Amino acid sequence: MKTIDVCLSPELMHLYPVHDKTVVVVDVLRATSCMVTAFAHGAESITPFANLDACREMKLKGYITSGERDGKKVEGFDKGNSPFEYMSDDIQGLKIAFTTTNGTMAIEKSKGAKEVIIGSFLNLNAVAKYLLFNENNVLVVCAGWKGRVNLEDTLFAGALVEKLKDYLGPDCDAPLAARHLYNIAKSDMSKFLSESSHVKRLNKLNIHEDFEFCLSIDKYNKLPRLKNGVLVS
Amino acid sequence: MKTIDVCLSPELMHLYPVHDKTVVVVDVLRATSCMVTAFAHGAESITPFANLDACREMKLKGYITSGERDGKKVEGFDKGNSPFEYMSDDIQGLKIAFTTTNGTMAIEKSKGAKEVIIGSFLNLNAVAKYLLFNENNVLVVCAGWKGRVNLEDTLFAGALVEKLKDYLGPDCDAPLAARHLYNIAKSDMSKFLSESSHVKRLNKLNIHEDFEFCLSIDKYNKLPRLKNGVLVS
Repeated sequence: MKTIDVCLSPELMHLYPVHDKTVVVVDVLRATSCMVTAFAHGAESITPFANLDACREMKLKGYITSGERDGKKVEGFDKGNSPFEYMSDDIQGLKIAFTTTNGTMAIEKSKGAKEVIIGSFLNLNAVAKYLLFNENNVLVVCAGWKGRVNLEDTLFAGALVEKLKDYLGPDCDAPLAARHLYNIAKSDMSKFLSESSHVKRLNKLNIHEDFEFCLSIDKYNKLPRLKNGVLVS
Repeated sequence: MKTIDVCLSPELMHLYPVHDKTVVVVDVLRATSCMVTAFAHGAESITPFANLDACREMKLKGYITSGERDGKKVEGFDKGNSPFEYMSDDIQGLKIAFTTTNGTMAIEKSKGAKEVIIGSFLNLNAVAKYLLFNENNVLVVCAGWKGRVNLEDTLFAGALVEKLKDYLGPDCDAPLAARHLYNIAKSDMSKFLSESSHVKRLNKLNIHEDFEFCLSIDKYNKLPRLKNGVLVS
């Protein structure tokens, strides 16, 4: 039986050999939700940057610059980190340079993997279907918050473990914990997450709509994947 | 309101400032359960060592040597890592040098804290009561398994968060996750943990009795604490 494991924070990545694995990077609130939304609206590519200045420089090469630090849009950037900014017709064909506090860092740390794909609740089923028919063992990398474990990414990992439970066995305790948490939360994820620290942070920024949107399941049938350091779909 | 946070793996310790905190180190299976048991049977002190050779050398200074690597007693050591080895009358007055795969490493990494105490299900109430009347914020450090998150230490953390919920607020998402998991597990922790990786590891070593014993709640009213690098009670 193939296995599925969950790395609850990018700071634990060094414990997980990934050269032979498919890594699913998830940052539900909001980086990977934005990425999936952008591809669903025709973006050509998204180049993730852990470093802010490197991201900013891409403007000179015809990219639009996107992202946040501490939940807020970066000054001088074209777009922030709300999925609603990636839905208009003008996304079509764009090349996007993207940097966020946690999500793009998690992608950076996953680059040694056999393959890297992007997960969110918005494309949960697309991810699950892909993993089912793929031959590799799986590691879900939760972006967390500045290295700390968060609930929303853990729930996504748990949703994947639950969906694939008849086909991929848990490799350690983290996927078991994530699955239990998802199974408590699934009937009302919004309520379950309302006490989480990141949701409180987002509510302070008046972006409750983003939160609700990012919990929509299977809105898009897109599977962004990393190819030579660039996300395509 | 004072706060309680949970560090799910010693590999995440660098994210948590501890100089002003009371740290509770837990390694349910089995290091901290052994320590509490030893003090309940009259041990004078336990000196934790992350390094095996440093621990071995203490024999020359009149200590008994205890511990395990990969769940097995270290060759040439006086005692292993089963709580049943720390219950006999001959424990009375002993100075013990102790090293384990995960637990003593977690203690080592906690040494910058304002104070360090030792937790297990065996002394859950003693720990909770102490934290309640203590003025510091709290960090529970789960020993995990070789850096990875495990279920049993997470459950102990969750039990503490649950017990103290009216007096200590969760500082981040990890205590919320731990509390949820404990609340699912509490009616039958043994069953809940039966699928966990460490329990499977222990069962292979024929130490199912240890597992059941380490889940006994409030068996001992002892509170081991670190004083100049040495545990006393």
